[in-house]
Amino acid sequence: MDKVVAEISISLDGYVAGPSPTLEEPLGKGGEQLHEWVVRLKTFKELHGIEGGGDVDADEEVFAEYVHAQGAVVMGRKMFSGGEGPWENDPKASGWWGDEPPFHKPVFVVTHHEREPLVLGETTFTFVTDGVEAAVEQARAVVPADRNVLVAGGADTIDQALAAGLVDELQLHVAPVLLGGGTRLFEGLGAQRPRLELAAVRESPYVSHLRYRVG
Amino acid sequence: MDKVVAEISISLDGYVAGPSPTLEEPLGKGGEQLHEWVVRLKTFKELHGIEGGGDVDADEEVFAEYVHAQGAVVMGRKMFSGGEGPWENDPKASGWWGDEPPFHKPVFVVTHHEREPLVLGETTFTFVTDGVEAAVEQARAVVPADRNVLVAGGADTIDQALAAGLVDELQLHVAPVLLGGGTRLFEGLGAQRPRLELAAVRESPYVSHLRYRVG
Repeated sequence: MDKVVAEISISLDGYVAGPSPTLEEPLGKGGEQLHEWVVRLKTFKELHGIEGGGDVDADEEVFAEYVHAQGAVVMGRKMFSGGEGPWENDPKASGWWGDEPPFHKPVFVVTHHEREPLVLGETTFTFVTDGVEAAVEQARAVVPADRNVLVAGGADTIDQALAAGLVDELQLHVAPVLLGGGTRLFEGLGAQRPRLELAAVRESPYVSHLRYRVG
Repeated sequence: MDKVVAEISISLDGYVAGPSPTLEEPLGKGGEQLHEWVVRLKTFKELHGIEGGGDVDADEEVFAEYVHAQGAVVMGRKMFSGGEGPWENDPKASGWWGDEPPFHKPVFVVTHHEREPLVLGETTFTFVTDGVEAAVEQARAVVPADRNVLVAGGADTIDQALAAGLVDELQLHVAPVLLGGGTRLFEGLGAQRPRLELAAVRESPYVSHLRYRVG
């Protein structure tokens, strides 16, 4: 494994999801704006099996680079199931990612609910009930030497990974939007705030990509 | 006047000052870290009458450019007086900026306390008791055609100016630090959240400079 990277899109006022998430609007009110920079890109469309085109620009370069660097993904239960929905206690439910999830690699879901692994297309979801540290450990074990483990969210999972000292690199995609409410990143750190060192900044008209080494 | 620019240094977790500000530590616990990028610069040292040197680099370029573009400054009473200090009701007090404040131009202070203008070195402080809109108006009136009005802080003054639609450009200097508490920017906007458009990003190892057009 190369490194553990936490990565998420965030509003300029610090929210990774808007207020009042629902099953129809899992990112909350206005939350879709956080992802406008990415949903239009060539690599995003390919991963989601969307036919035709997709933008190729500075954002595509950033996105393609990090997607290809990923060997496994860690996510929280709500990111898997799309919120406090009817799936969360249903062992047969497949979450909100559909039959062909866009990950195409092993995904480790941090959850309190035991469940058999779930294979959907090229994505295998493995459910880990003993915390984010165990999930990162399992992900590290399956990742090739030159690939990263991605901690993809949500905010609480990234905060737990940061607070536990598991993260080598934090990449934020700062969208030029003020959501005014919702779910904040960094609120769950408590006194376990890591040191950050600015590693790289990339920009486009859509978003600012800020990358930090986490010490 | 060219435009009204709001500008402030901010932590990655969204604070423009740390928790528990005091007279000795007006930026709160850890708040000085937000300004590490600027206090070392040549133009900063010149403005503050500090002898000798100062760094000349990408940050100096950003800082010198915006300092030279400013024709007048608007600030809140706490930024003038250094917090809830003994000065705030004292018409003779000169605030915490000393005998030679670093502004060297007209400064308009939004306050509830009437007070005669105060001239210190090349800086004139004018006290405006009818709100941020009036302060910006007075600043616009004295500024040369090719210069900006700077709304310098604190958070509540910038939020009021943003909410009132007075700001043309927002520049944030995002420091790679997590303060974990303190005074947040954007908390005072309520439903009056302006639209933002990313205008430019500049970087250094110390800070990310994010500039937005405000619509």
